[in-house]
Amino acid sequence: MSDITIVVDCNDADFARDICAALQQFPDVTALLPHHQAARDAQYASCWFPSPQLLTRSPGLKLIQAASAGVDHLPPALFASDIPLCRVIDEDFRHGMFEYALWGVLWFQRYFDRALAHQRTQTWKLYPQRAAADFHIGIMGLGEIGGYIADQLARLGYRVSGWSRSEKQLAGVTCYRGEEALDSFLGSLDGLINLLPLTAQTRGILAAPLFSRLPAGAVLINCGRGEHMVNEDVLAALESGQLAGAVLDVFPQEPLPADDPLWRHPQVVITPHMASAAPAEVIARQLLENIQRQRRGLPLKNLVNKHAGY
Amino acid sequence: MSDITIVVDCNDADFARDICAALQQFPDVTALLPHHQAARDAQYASCWFPSPQLLTRSPGLKLIQAASAGVDHLPPALFASDIPLCRVIDEDFRHGMFEYALWGVLWFQRYFDRALAHQRTQTWKLYPQRAAADFHIGIMGLGEIGGYIADQLARLGYRVSGWSRSEKQLAGVTCYRGEEALDSFLGSLDGLINLLPLTAQTRGILAAPLFSRLPAGAVLINCGRGEHMVNEDVLAALESGQLAGAVLDVFPQEPLPADDPLWRHPQVVITPHMASAAPAEVIARQLLENIQRQRRGLPLKNLVNKHAGY
Repeated sequence: MSDITIVVDCNDADFARDICAALQQFPDVTALLPHHQAARDAQYASCWFPSPQLLTRSPGLKLIQAASAGVDHLPPALFASDIPLCRVIDEDFRHGMFEYALWGVLWFQRYFDRALAHQRTQTWKLYPQRAAADFHIGIMGLGEIGGYIADQLARLGYRVSGWSRSEKQLAGVTCYRGEEALDSFLGSLDGLINLLPLTAQTRGILAAPLFSRLPAGAVLINCGRGEHMVNEDVLAALESGQLAGAVLDVFPQEPLPADDPLWRHPQVVITPHMASAAPAEVIARQLLENIQRQRRGLPLKNLVNKHAGY
Repeated sequence: MSDITIVVDCNDADFARDICAALQQFPDVTALLPHHQAARDAQYASCWFPSPQLLTRSPGLKLIQAASAGVDHLPPALFASDIPLCRVIDEDFRHGMFEYALWGVLWFQRYFDRALAHQRTQTWKLYPQRAAADFHIGIMGLGEIGGYIADQLARLGYRVSGWSRSEKQLAGVTCYRGEEALDSFLGSLDGLINLLPLTAQTRGILAAPLFSRLPAGAVLINCGRGEHMVNEDVLAALESGQLAGAVLDVFPQEPLPADDPLWRHPQVVITPHMASAAPAEVIARQLLENIQRQRRGLPLKNLVNKHAGY
């Protein structure tokens, strides 16, 4: 490969430094932060919540990578441009998301939520065991990540349904498609896992109208985006018993403000956006592979559909 | 089949009633509690912590079933007798044990223990992600249950080692055998899962000498028996940091007394002997199948090795 200049534009200094270091491991690669003068001549960018000025500061970009699976953190100008946009999908990343979702499923299915609450009052109380086949999990979003998690949960014996915008077929998973199928999808679930991409259509979807279509006492696991969720509606559904519990990894504002009532709700588990992260080495490797593919005229991997928004 | 009389001798009235009801579903079966006069003529027994008088009250027994995977709750007279002794092994039972162990593994591997502790103080703090392949799990006991769990955890990408009395070979699992291999088995574990049978050799094995052979900061998951564990040594190992945490389902005294310090230890999860239970229907079906096999002169299923004690 001839010389490659990559600007690394991240709102987190540690993350930017890690990605730069991983990129520099490859021959002929110069990785720079946006304030560096040579960033003006960068042909490629790796981004995580980048500056809205990215395209004016580096006007010669030929390929932009979101250093993540989600791309909703990118400014609208990147979607409006003709520059191809890729994201990072990684076996370890999606397996990490699966581990998180599975922990949340077991937390409710096997009554760990109740056992840990009882522990606080030294109460020994056993509940009847629920088999995986008797626990009906619904997954919203059946892309690279949601599809993988649906398949893995089905292999572990769970009853799994999935819902997505476009039609999907997955062995062992009952697949639903589109708004008109939402009632059928939600109507008999024990637990709902959100893995949708964040788009204009999905923003605020985890709200009262959706919760009211779930059986009373269902549980919610959100490892999509905070903006999918209307916090007040989650709290109201927990209060009314419509939701029996929630495991939440993402929030409209992160870190979740210390005075947010979700922190203190006894039926809510709060985790710090930890469901999964791609390592810097994987981000660097996937960007270099796509640079090579683009130079050879091959189709790019994990290309974002700018119209759909993911 | 000709007439079958079964005495159901359990120390838990609800459990006894459920097993009786499940047995009565089969034709020609009479299921009785021990105080019933006709129990004297019973040919078969299903037991859970039975009375020491079982053999004198029902002198004509030809087959005794422990209504469980473990048989350590049976009185010594049953081991001394010539009557064949069976136990219950069930696909759902061992899968339930796997679910429990997996929840405990994820609790530590993915730092849910820390996230839930931080939630109590509204603290948002992220830890580097640990891949399953970087989390080394050791399983003590590689029988029907331990072997199944080792295999399932290896399939999920964990690094798995196993330790047992007799030699085992399991794909994807490094197997160790006997006392002389204990140091090698324990020396590099991140987490230890106990699934040993309770015998004179294994009683009290989860104690200071074993903990000191683990790397500092390893974690313990006990879903074997409470008598495997020396409570004071678990507490001391947690205090010294030799153990970083424990998920405990079984205790020398159950229910765990309300004043036991384990209840209140911040790094300990206490659950009420809930890791798994075979349903009464499975217990009844397996006993009837073995009765049929015995009458036809076929080998019994899940026969207990009375010498080994499991």
